[in-house]
Amino acid sequence: MPIDPGAVGATSDKVERSWTSTDCLLYALGVGAGATDAAAELEYTTENSLGVSQQVLPTFPVILGIHALRGVYPKIGPFDHAMLVHAEQSVMIHAPLPVEGRVSTQATVSAMWDKGSGAVVTTDTTGLDAATGQPLFTLGASVFIRGEGGWGGDRGPGKPVDPPDRAADHEVVYATRIDQALLYRLSGDRNPLHSDPQYAAKAGFPGPILHGLCTYGFTGRALLGALCEGDPARFGAMSGRFSKPVMPGDTLTVSMWRIDNGDVAFRTANQRGETVLDAGRFSFAG
Amino acid sequence: MPIDPGAVGATSDKVERSWTSTDCLLYALGVGAGATDAAAELEYTTENSLGVSQQVLPTFPVILGIHALRGVYPKIGPFDHAMLVHAEQSVMIHAPLPVEGRVSTQATVSAMWDKGSGAVVTTDTTGLDAATGQPLFTLGASVFIRGEGGWGGDRGPGKPVDPPDRAADHEVVYATRIDQALLYRLSGDRNPLHSDPQYAAKAGFPGPILHGLCTYGFTGRALLGALCEGDPARFGAMSGRFSKPVMPGDTLTVSMWRIDNGDVAFRTANQRGETVLDAGRFSFAG
Repeated sequence: MPIDPGAVGATSDKVERSWTSTDCLLYALGVGAGATDAAAELEYTTENSLGVSQQVLPTFPVILGIHALRGVYPKIGPFDHAMLVHAEQSVMIHAPLPVEGRVSTQATVSAMWDKGSGAVVTTDTTGLDAATGQPLFTLGASVFIRGEGGWGGDRGPGKPVDPPDRAADHEVVYATRIDQALLYRLSGDRNPLHSDPQYAAKAGFPGPILHGLCTYGFTGRALLGALCEGDPARFGAMSGRFSKPVMPGDTLTVSMWRIDNGDVAFRTANQRGETVLDAGRFSFAG
Repeated sequence: MPIDPGAVGATSDKVERSWTSTDCLLYALGVGAGATDAAAELEYTTENSLGVSQQVLPTFPVILGIHALRGVYPKIGPFDHAMLVHAEQSVMIHAPLPVEGRVSTQATVSAMWDKGSGAVVTTDTTGLDAATGQPLFTLGASVFIRGEGGWGGDRGPGKPVDPPDRAADHEVVYATRIDQALLYRLSGDRNPLHSDPQYAAKAGFPGPILHGLCTYGFTGRALLGALCEGDPARFGAMSGRFSKPVMPGDTLTVSMWRIDNGDVAFRTANQRGETVLDAGRFSFAG
């Protein structure tokens, strides 16, 4: 057990990242914008359409936070990175992102839980406008690291609350494509698990699996469309737990339930009805 | 007739362009690589698959030549650029392109023909390795400029030779996608004719049309696969004439005929059998 449970509070270096209009367009196509109706999401897929102002999908910040996140894991001690799986992801938007800019990001280890068979490590990554210091977004990620538990620590919180046991208030269905991961990876995550059949076979999968954060982006588009009328200024935060791999070409159904406090519970399932993104929570901005 | 028929021989400034591995991957996806079988063209769509070396599609240089080409048109005098349509394109590969590099490009006006109702302006664009001066590629383009003919000049060559009147030796069918132009445009040509429904309607089209050079890239992939076993070192040159707009979502059938001199004639048609890229000629390398 070479990871250090005392690493809670450790931070990455501050990492500055700039992004361009093109980065936002590429990301939007990578999570399926325009795929079934090329004219339906022009504000996300084009920068020069008449009467349309380019906007940024609210889940785009996950791309900007990846370098700070990679920078914090070495702070918890040595472990086999092949044992790490992405378990949960949240994104909170403090202000709609401009189509280009520069952000200062920093990741902090917020908790480490001992699950016996492994450890859960949670991190928060903040993104501040590099010029003004204004908070732009906060990302939460938790990863499960197999084989790193057993230090007698707290197990941490249990499974988040399931959606209500009734018919969903909204459902959005999106088909992913055979080559979805080939496109999504150009936004930055080049792990060959998502593209190389041989590598994926060695990892025990029948073929390359879709990036969890690609599924996350499709789900975010569904929430944005069904709950916010496509307006990113109304999108506050979303969180969810990855529960099953998605294969490129799978069809995703995002189901949403309005719940008592004004938030929305959601869940994403594949074409066999298997949940792939579970225990989702969405909050409106403001 | 404000264009100057004496501009033959005029050159653009030399323009240096660098390209990256990612640019090549994005272009490959933009012309449909991996779209129906994500594992079939990994050498074009990935840079880190086990046992696979990334390669560059032979039509990729059209992306690198666009800036020099835009730089030479002002040299022929003022004209309404909305009257310009891309008529023909050729690409000749002198050496397989590395996956990243820097090229010095320069375009030259090679001919101007008076078609009465308009002018045909042909250009050659050379690409030299910026470090070594080694020739990498030569691009030929001709454009038709409506309303600019009538100076009493030579009409130039007639229609190139049609393919033989017999069944094709090879046929390759590729479906383009509804959002094909949204992806292709990220390789550099952001003309809203290919993305904005309003703009396209003003130009008299039922919707945004696919980039001619996207159709060209699909066609080049078909030639590469059917004639070169996917090996870009065997790809010498291809040329063709754009004869009809392609709409995103159209299905393209590329038909090929081996002809007497060892070259291959080809033609690309849409799902209604209408020819969209005509009078094609392909030559093997060496």
